[in-house]
Amino acid sequence: MSWQDKLRQVEPYVAGEQPKINNMIKLNTNENPYGPCKQIKDILKEIDIEKLKLYPNSDGEELRHALAKYHGLKDEQVFLGNGSDEVLALTFLTFFNGSDPVLFPNISYSFYPVYCDLYQMNYKEIILDQDFKMYVEDFKQPNSGIIFPNPNAPTGLLVSLDFIEEVLKSNPDSIVVVDEAYIDFGGQSCVPLIHQYENLVVIQTFSKSRSFAGARLGVALGNKEAISHLYDVKNSFNSYPIDYITQQIGLVSVLNSQDMKEKCQKVIQTREYTKTKLKELGFVVPDSYANFVFVKHPKIDGEELFLALRKEGIIVRHWNKPLIDQYLRVTIGTDQQMERFFEFLENYLNQKELL
Amino acid sequence: MSWQDKLRQVEPYVAGEQPKINNMIKLNTNENPYGPCKQIKDILKEIDIEKLKLYPNSDGEELRHALAKYHGLKDEQVFLGNGSDEVLALTFLTFFNGSDPVLFPNISYSFYPVYCDLYQMNYKEIILDQDFKMYVEDFKQPNSGIIFPNPNAPTGLLVSLDFIEEVLKSNPDSIVVVDEAYIDFGGQSCVPLIHQYENLVVIQTFSKSRSFAGARLGVALGNKEAISHLYDVKNSFNSYPIDYITQQIGLVSVLNSQDMKEKCQKVIQTREYTKTKLKELGFVVPDSYANFVFVKHPKIDGEELFLALRKEGIIVRHWNKPLIDQYLRVTIGTDQQMERFFEFLENYLNQKELL
Repeated sequence: MSWQDKLRQVEPYVAGEQPKINNMIKLNTNENPYGPCKQIKDILKEIDIEKLKLYPNSDGEELRHALAKYHGLKDEQVFLGNGSDEVLALTFLTFFNGSDPVLFPNISYSFYPVYCDLYQMNYKEIILDQDFKMYVEDFKQPNSGIIFPNPNAPTGLLVSLDFIEEVLKSNPDSIVVVDEAYIDFGGQSCVPLIHQYENLVVIQTFSKSRSFAGARLGVALGNKEAISHLYDVKNSFNSYPIDYITQQIGLVSVLNSQDMKEKCQKVIQTREYTKTKLKELGFVVPDSYANFVFVKHPKIDGEELFLALRKEGIIVRHWNKPLIDQYLRVTIGTDQQMERFFEFLENYLNQKELL
Repeated sequence: MSWQDKLRQVEPYVAGEQPKINNMIKLNTNENPYGPCKQIKDILKEIDIEKLKLYPNSDGEELRHALAKYHGLKDEQVFLGNGSDEVLALTFLTFFNGSDPVLFPNISYSFYPVYCDLYQMNYKEIILDQDFKMYVEDFKQPNSGIIFPNPNAPTGLLVSLDFIEEVLKSNPDSIVVVDEAYIDFGGQSCVPLIHQYENLVVIQTFSKSRSFAGARLGVALGNKEAISHLYDVKNSFNSYPIDYITQQIGLVSVLNSQDMKEKCQKVIQTREYTKTKLKELGFVVPDSYANFVFVKHPKIDGEELFLALRKEGIIVRHWNKPLIDQYLRVTIGTDQQMERFFEFLENYLNQKELL
């Protein structure tokens, strides 16, 4: 017996790399190419640093209120966490404690199985078809909980509100979590369904559409009772996950949501142009509703192209995993960044005589 | 069967209240009466808000390096988390997975049993004597891990490095966690023992001595292997717990540690004066090495005094729990705040004809 025998056995999630390369074009972790609203700068200048000696508001009261208003919900229907990864981690721990498996798609956010391993929960992957499509029938089986991103990551594909409603109706005895990390890039949010279905929990993040990856804010929305259970578990883990400054700048972001929406529109325009351009270049391009595209070229190996791009300082995401190893996930950058990406691809395809 | 049947059963930790009372004297959550170093203000003015759109460094590399240097350790021996509550939560989850109970004192940080309930771990409380003293023999029994604060909270009492060494030597097959949240207020840190004992993990916080309760930074220090396991579990929970701004201001705090030490000296002076003064007023005053005192008056009920103070806007901490319900935990404030506290007590005791 040793102290090592008492360790939790885990296989940690591996986040996209944050390489230190000069002049790189970073299209690998779905960050927003545009920064947050400029009012944040003023707020940071005005922060009273004496406030830092005091514990922050435990639940981020003001920010919570602003978000509730933004979503047409009551304050008690809003949960805040340290990035949506923490919100997801606490959501699994709060709601998925049955004996049946947790259900999620086999091609999806790769943190889901990691949470299950961490908490020693069973899970069963719902197998997507070869076009990465989900079928609602697959979610009609015994489970301890259901989670899927919408739009899905890394595919970018969207399901309809009808699809979500059918999953909710078929599973009144489970919490169904819809992970809307990328919803602001053109998808239709299922938040309004919260008024009808008490088993729906929606998770969103400030990291993507609100350009707050560096600030760590995630959100869960749901019925009052479910959200209060989530707070109970959070208060059994960490009383004060959101620091004072983040609460202040998060509030400014919500109060300036129009700025976020305009930046999302720019990303959407660039994404649509990117889809057209990549199709012209011979790529297979599933119909993404997110701030990334998930693409493959029928005649170029995924890893080979990933490495060739990397050599040019263009960093995209590639997984050495069955079913998706021929694909690259490419974050939508600025128009200028995407032009450099297309230019490289054109040269590359020309050299291979594939254009 | 309902979704409620799949909930995690928890009894959340209850943090000290953050009341909204004008002109209150807040002596209830062990915050530092003095703010952080003034250089923080400049850093906040200079923050490049464009950086917020990018994920922060996952491990807080620069801050970690500065802390390693401060403690005479290697970078790989330093773990950073979102406040020491998160560090504690992840420490329990990483190291305490045996079948024997986790050991901690019965009068101690009341978050410890909450973590055990959250993770469904067994625990056994080590019973302190009537003067709140711990005995090393009690830590010589089968266990999955050991944790105690030093100085202990809420008592303020300190154990010696010899005591800690004996616990470490008697438990080579368990991780022994020493929670040094209050160590900068005059106790001798056991961090140097890390070089000798691979089963030692020391937890510290920026919330108290560094006046960073509002900024959320906690630290674990230990041998490289133990710390790497802690990172594996953290990376199975949340990839980026520490936001960009907190990493920047945390670094400034560490680089200006002299400022922290001077402010701690002021708190220590006020604490020593407080002890003397309270003894003069007839209180029982255990010998605190923290930024609070844990006191009772032999002739006044604890709750009664708590409520009388509260009525005057002087907020201290009281627990309605066996063994400690006659005590009040009083955070050391500024000299001026403490004078108002003493003044109130003198009047109160005079009215009761107890002086």
